[in-house]
Amino acid sequence: MLTICNRNDLLKSVGIVSKAVSSKTTLPILECILLDAEGNQLTLLGNDLELGIQTTIEATVKKEGCIAVNARIFSEIIRRLPDEDIKIETDDHHNITIECDRSKFNIAGQSGEDFPRLPEVESKQQIVLPQATFKDMIHNTIFSIAPEDSGRPILTGELMDIRDGYLYLVAVDGFRISMRRTQVNCAEEFKVTVPGKALNEIHKILENEEDSLMTVSFTGKHVIFQMNETIVLSRLLEGDFLQYQRNLNMDFQSKVIINKKELLDSVDRAALISRESKNSPIRLQIEGDKMIITSNAENGSAYEEIALNLEGEGLTIAFNPKYFLDALKAIEEEEICIHLSSSLTPCIIQDVESEDYKYFILPIRLHS
Amino acid sequence: MLTICNRNDLLKSVGIVSKAVSSKTTLPILECILLDAEGNQLTLLGNDLELGIQTTIEATVKKEGCIAVNARIFSEIIRRLPDEDIKIETDDHHNITIECDRSKFNIAGQSGEDFPRLPEVESKQQIVLPQATFKDMIHNTIFSIAPEDSGRPILTGELMDIRDGYLYLVAVDGFRISMRRTQVNCAEEFKVTVPGKALNEIHKILENEEDSLMTVSFTGKHVIFQMNETIVLSRLLEGDFLQYQRNLNMDFQSKVIINKKELLDSVDRAALISRESKNSPIRLQIEGDKMIITSNAENGSAYEEIALNLEGEGLTIAFNPKYFLDALKAIEEEEICIHLSSSLTPCIIQDVESEDYKYFILPIRLHS
Repeated sequence: MLTICNRNDLLKSVGIVSKAVSSKTTLPILECILLDAEGNQLTLLGNDLELGIQTTIEATVKKEGCIAVNARIFSEIIRRLPDEDIKIETDDHHNITIECDRSKFNIAGQSGEDFPRLPEVESKQQIVLPQATFKDMIHNTIFSIAPEDSGRPILTGELMDIRDGYLYLVAVDGFRISMRRTQVNCAEEFKVTVPGKALNEIHKILENEEDSLMTVSFTGKHVIFQMNETIVLSRLLEGDFLQYQRNLNMDFQSKVIINKKELLDSVDRAALISRESKNSPIRLQIEGDKMIITSNAENGSAYEEIALNLEGEGLTIAFNPKYFLDALKAIEEEEICIHLSSSLTPCIIQDVESEDYKYFILPIRLHS
Repeated sequence: MLTICNRNDLLKSVGIVSKAVSSKTTLPILECILLDAEGNQLTLLGNDLELGIQTTIEATVKKEGCIAVNARIFSEIIRRLPDEDIKIETDDHHNITIECDRSKFNIAGQSGEDFPRLPEVESKQQIVLPQATFKDMIHNTIFSIAPEDSGRPILTGELMDIRDGYLYLVAVDGFRISMRRTQVNCAEEFKVTVPGKALNEIHKILENEEDSLMTVSFTGKHVIFQMNETIVLSRLLEGDFLQYQRNLNMDFQSKVIINKKELLDSVDRAALISRESKNSPIRLQIEGDKMIITSNAENGSAYEEIALNLEGEGLTIAFNPKYFLDALKAIEEEEICIHLSSSLTPCIIQDVESEDYKYFILPIRLHS
C-alpha cells in the first residue's frame, strides 16, 4: 500500500473510527484500525464486533492495499504531525512508514486481511431523518438508560419504536422513562433496541446542521446508521423492551407551567444540601402561583421559591434530585410543563406545545 | 454578623482562599474558611497552618462579627447563586443564613474565634516586582522541583536567592536545574526556600498585567506575598538548598541556536515512540546545519530533522525526552540556545539574548 492524504482529514477520520476500537480485548487485532487504500479513497474501519465504524476520505493511491495499525499509536502520531500531506507506505512484512514534512515514523502493523470487515447485511426497512434531529433525540433520552451493571441488559439500550408515522426513541432505567419522537416515513411498524454505546458514539459523529440527512437501516440483527461518508453498524440487543406507552399516556389532575432555567437552578441548589445527606429527596410544594423547593440535611437546609402557572389542585411531592436534574439539563425549551396527580403517583415533564418529548419520573414517599 | 456583598466578588475570593484549605485534616476547623466582617469590608481567610491565604472584598456590614464555614459547601452554594447581592447572617449558635434573590440556605458554621489567624510576623527584608514577572518565573521553573515522595524535602520547594541586584528563582530535582532571574532592589543578600505548593497557588492568583506590582517580605521563618487585596503567607522550608551556581556557569565547547517550536514538536513526536519502550532516551545528532532526532522502540522508530545554527563541534547526545519537553514547554521565546560539550556532559538550554533563564540537564549515556 502507498497512499498520500491530507493530515486534517486523516486525523478527523481516525478520531471517528477509533470510537469502535476495543480498549480491552484478548484479540490484539481489535486494538487496530484498518486502513484500506483503493481507487482514489482511503477507507478507515474500527470494529469491536459489537460496533463497527467505517469512514472514507479522499486520497492519492499509488499502490492499493490494506493494513491494520494500532489505533492509539497511529492516532497519537497523526495528531502530532503538522498539517501537510502524509504519505503512508507498507512493505510485505506489514511494516508501516509514515512520512510528513521532515518527520518519518516506522511502526509494526498487522495484516489487513486478518481484520474483521463489517458483515454484509441485507436491510429490511429504512428511514431517513435530519442528523440534527436524531442528535437531539439521543441527547434528550440517553441519560436515563440503565447502567451496564444493572442486571437488565435490554435496558442498557434505547428502544427505536417505529409506529403511527413516528420514530419513538425511548430510554428506561426502572425509575424513569425518557421518550422523544419525530415524524418519519416508513410503511412498516417495528421496534428494535440499540445499545447505548452505539448511540453515544453516533451522537458525537452527527452534525448539527438541520439539512444534513442520515439513513437508518434495519436488519434482523443489526442497525446501520449512514451519515455522509461514515457508516456505523451496531448489533441489536435481544429481548423484550419494557412496555412504556401506558405510563406516558396516563391522566393527570394538575398541570404546572414553569420556567425551565429557574427550576433547574433552584433544584440544583437544593440538591447541594440533599447530597450532603446521602441524596435525601428534595420536596416540591406547589400552591397558588409558586413552587417552594426545600431540602434538609443534618447540617443545613435550603429553601427556594419560583413563580409558576398552575391548573388544578396544589400538592407536595418529593423526588430524587438527580433524576429531576438529568431531565431539566437535557431539555432546551424555555418553559416546560409538569403533569401531576398526587404525592404518591408519577409525574411527567414535557414540552409545553407538543407531545414530542415526555419524561416520566417516580416520586419518593415522604415521611411525616 | 450581618453583611451584604456582591456575589461575583465573593465567588472569586472564596476561590482564592480555598486554595489554602486542608482537604485531609484531623482538625475540622481547617476545612473551613473564615469570614470576618468589619468596617466596610469582608475578609476571607483559608489557613492550613503551612500556607495561609487572605483576601478582602467590599461589603455592607450591618453587624460586625466572624464565622468559620465549611469551604467546600460554602463555595458550592455561592457558585450556584445568581449574580445578585448576597446577605450573610449568623446567630449566636454559629448558624449561618445565606440569602440571595429567592434562595435561602441555612448551614451550620463554627466559631470564628477558634479559626487560626495568620501569625503576626515582623518582616526583615522586602522586595517589590511586577506580578506578571513573578508569574512567568514560577512557570519557567516549578516543573523541575522534586516530587513530595523524593525523600529530599528541601528540593520540593524553590530557592529564592537574592544577590547581586537579582532575584534568582531556582528549582532542582537531582536530574536538572531550572533558574530564572530578574533584577530587584534589595540592599541585603539572602536566600530562602519556598514550598512548591505555595508557589503553585500564588501562580494562579498573580495577574498578567505588567503594571500590577507585588511585595514579597521575608522573616526568619515565613515569606509573605502581597498582591492587591490578597496576602499569601507561607512557612519556609528548613535546610540547605543545593549549590546550583557552579553548574549553571560551566564552560561549553558547542553552541546551537534552534527554533523552539520545531524542536518541541519534533521531540514530542520522537517521545511517542520512546514512551512505548519504557521511556528509552531520544538521541540528538547535531552536525553541520541540522539536528537529527531519533528514537527506537521494540515496535517502531521515529526520525526527525530540524535546521539549526551550530558554533563549534557537532556531537551526538541522548536525553530523557520528558526532561527536555518540560523545559521547551515552559519557554516562550521563538529561538533558544543550547550549550553542549560532549555526549557525557550536561547541557544548558537558555535564552538567546540574555542569561535570565537557564535550564541545566544531565544526558543519558548511550549504549553502543
